[in-house]
Amino acid sequence: MTLEISTLSNGLRIVTHAMDHLETVSLGMWVATGARHETESENGISHLLEHMAFKGTGKRSAKQIAEEIETVGGELNAATSLETTAYYARVLKGDETVALDVLADILQNSVFDPAELDREREVILQEIAATRDSPEEIAYDLLQEAAFPDQAVGRNILGTVQSVKGFDGAALKDFMARWYTPERMVFAAAGAVNHERLVRHVEAQFGALARKPDVATAPARYLGGSKIWSRRFEQTHVLLGFEGPSYFADDFFAAQVFSGLFGGGMSSRLFQEARERRGLCYSIYSSAWSLADVGLFSIHAATGREMITELSDVVIDQLHAIAREGPNAAEVQRSKAQLKAGLLMGLESASARTEQMARHLLSHGRVIPSEELRANVDNVTADDIQAFARRLVAGTPSVTVVGAGRGTDTHATHLAGAFGHAA
Amino acid sequence: MTLEISTLSNGLRIVTHAMDHLETVSLGMWVATGARHETESENGISHLLEHMAFKGTGKRSAKQIAEEIETVGGELNAATSLETTAYYARVLKGDETVALDVLADILQNSVFDPAELDREREVILQEIAATRDSPEEIAYDLLQEAAFPDQAVGRNILGTVQSVKGFDGAALKDFMARWYTPERMVFAAAGAVNHERLVRHVEAQFGALARKPDVATAPARYLGGSKIWSRRFEQTHVLLGFEGPSYFADDFFAAQVFSGLFGGGMSSRLFQEARERRGLCYSIYSSAWSLADVGLFSIHAATGREMITELSDVVIDQLHAIAREGPNAAEVQRSKAQLKAGLLMGLESASARTEQMARHLLSHGRVIPSEELRANVDNVTADDIQAFARRLVAGTPSVTVVGAGRGTDTHATHLAGAFGHAA
Repeated sequence: MTLEISTLSNGLRIVTHAMDHLETVSLGMWVATGARHETESENGISHLLEHMAFKGTGKRSAKQIAEEIETVGGELNAATSLETTAYYARVLKGDETVALDVLADILQNSVFDPAELDREREVILQEIAATRDSPEEIAYDLLQEAAFPDQAVGRNILGTVQSVKGFDGAALKDFMARWYTPERMVFAAAGAVNHERLVRHVEAQFGALARKPDVATAPARYLGGSKIWSRRFEQTHVLLGFEGPSYFADDFFAAQVFSGLFGGGMSSRLFQEARERRGLCYSIYSSAWSLADVGLFSIHAATGREMITELSDVVIDQLHAIAREGPNAAEVQRSKAQLKAGLLMGLESASARTEQMARHLLSHGRVIPSEELRANVDNVTADDIQAFARRLVAGTPSVTVVGAGRGTDTHATHLAGAFGHAA
Repeated sequence: MTLEISTLSNGLRIVTHAMDHLETVSLGMWVATGARHETESENGISHLLEHMAFKGTGKRSAKQIAEEIETVGGELNAATSLETTAYYARVLKGDETVALDVLADILQNSVFDPAELDREREVILQEIAATRDSPEEIAYDLLQEAAFPDQAVGRNILGTVQSVKGFDGAALKDFMARWYTPERMVFAAAGAVNHERLVRHVEAQFGALARKPDVATAPARYLGGSKIWSRRFEQTHVLLGFEGPSYFADDFFAAQVFSGLFGGGMSSRLFQEARERRGLCYSIYSSAWSLADVGLFSIHAATGREMITELSDVVIDQLHAIAREGPNAAEVQRSKAQLKAGLLMGLESASARTEQMARHLLSHGRVIPSEELRANVDNVTADDIQAFARRLVAGTPSVTVVGAGRGTDTHATHLAGAFGHAA
């Protein structure tokens, strides 16, 4: 058994998966805190905090943080999502304490110097500007807003130009003290790692972090609606979303199998009909993401203005067809085979495995064994998939259309009108 | 010894790296043919051919090709670059012959049906349109054109709207017959693979492919110049390029170490000065790519119009400073450590290893041992790096500026004027 889990007395968990054939180790801290834990005026603070963690502690400048990890050939990175913030590294065997020391310092002793904060705000304003030059990112941001209006899960993780300008060091410290508590933290590592030694180091570095009462997270509610962005691009991007399952829901695996056969690989219905049979687009796919209490299933398609109506009609027709007729046995088998192979490939990458273990512990309180995940995939039936498709087409859609100029609004109305009534 | 190489009697090479701890295998055919082998009127045909290989053979339709590989949970993909075209897959242990049979069929028996060709042209026109919605991709395409004007290596791999419309099945067959010859092909695999068994299968599938006289490749010549694209974006993208080393050149490794410390990781000069000290941008980095006879070293920076002049001046000043003063010992050591760690991490990924082995065989005629690569990195001195920087600032620059509206042209002139005279 190479998977080991320990819990410190303050509640912080440590999980490792030793892969003895590797010469490197992936490791990092996953915190169960992200954009969904922000109030409206705090929008973007999780992400700003993630940036500011690299900008200096009581004993290391920003430059020293970068140099310390890169001197041993390591890489340090971080990412903020709706429910988690992750700080992680990849280093050579034997250098895991170098990474751990830096991570422990930036997570507990960051100073949030005002001059550094002013500069980092400018960096994030440019990060926001870059997303506004990508019609696909605009479309995804708007879809989230359309699906979950006036809620934290509907707001952009980066925040707004306005909100990012508003935060000071005290706000960052306050947010961190409230949400970065040991029971919300998992330190995960995979690769050339020794569990006991790592646990000793993590305890030495994080053992003094005080347990605190947990803060309640406001539930999210899928509502749906339409959002458009009419600025002209070469391609029009259409996103169609529906309420999807949370990762605790009974139909979580049905949604995954459905998404694979409907808009996953090259043999999926959308790819075959829209790209292979009609040459309507370069990019078309579906995806499903899940949070603790809700999810979002979405379909993305992009093409030129003159073909977007035909492309959207393919999406509409294909969704109604599978809801009406259900999937065939061969496509169900194929989607399951792809999901199961993907699970296996994930186990072979130290960084993917590290992230999977951390996320499972944060969401489910345990690392779900691969055999159990595979069995859950296998247990999905064609009827489950058809039932899932039926719920989609009968549900309230979320629609975003980006880049079609004057036709943008009309097109959004056309798409939204195709759903929401019983199949 | 886990690395094994065999050569069929027709010259086709097979290389494998068995990784016994893996349950999956990465495998594929790398062909020493790409956009640089195209005449002007053939621009884009390598890429179109790569797309059309998936559109049907004498015994499999496009749908059957996709289904066959995805039924066993595998993934099939392809990529075209200036010097190579790759067709590759990742499958579970034991399924490598499924992938091999499909790859052999699409590489030898594609029919290029006219109706399929018409549809695929539309798909590629959308792929081209998507790149025109990305200021970064526009900037890179223009940089290539500015650096290598009126040459195959300066043209866009995707071709132009005009050229893509011009190809028929006969042109595809002719190009394939001329360039897809066994001596220009390497079949590579890493992971759960048995060399002897794979060689037998590859021989059965590709053994009849006839040897042909090799076609000469026109040499490329770096010239440099400026290209602008004034359409307004939220961010202005600046690319500054210089002639870089070919992968046979003495300063190939010096260029890699230089790029790492100048604009590689978080501790690099550009990141520290432009982002950390001044908060001028979110994205800034340098990179160096190499072909058989020439290379291109480039620096990419993006920010808002009001800050682009200051950002460009940071790039100019930093380049002149390192050419004048040379690097310090610590940053040289850091960049080497990062490069060497990256080499090790590449060895741990079956797909990265497959690609590395294939590229080494195609370019160097052998798989360069990791110890030799590490020694080459170690042998780079601070003097080598300063000499490389001096050649850059004294050379003719290639400049592209995208998205600054009316100021685009002036800004390009400003950048171009800062180089090309002795340091």
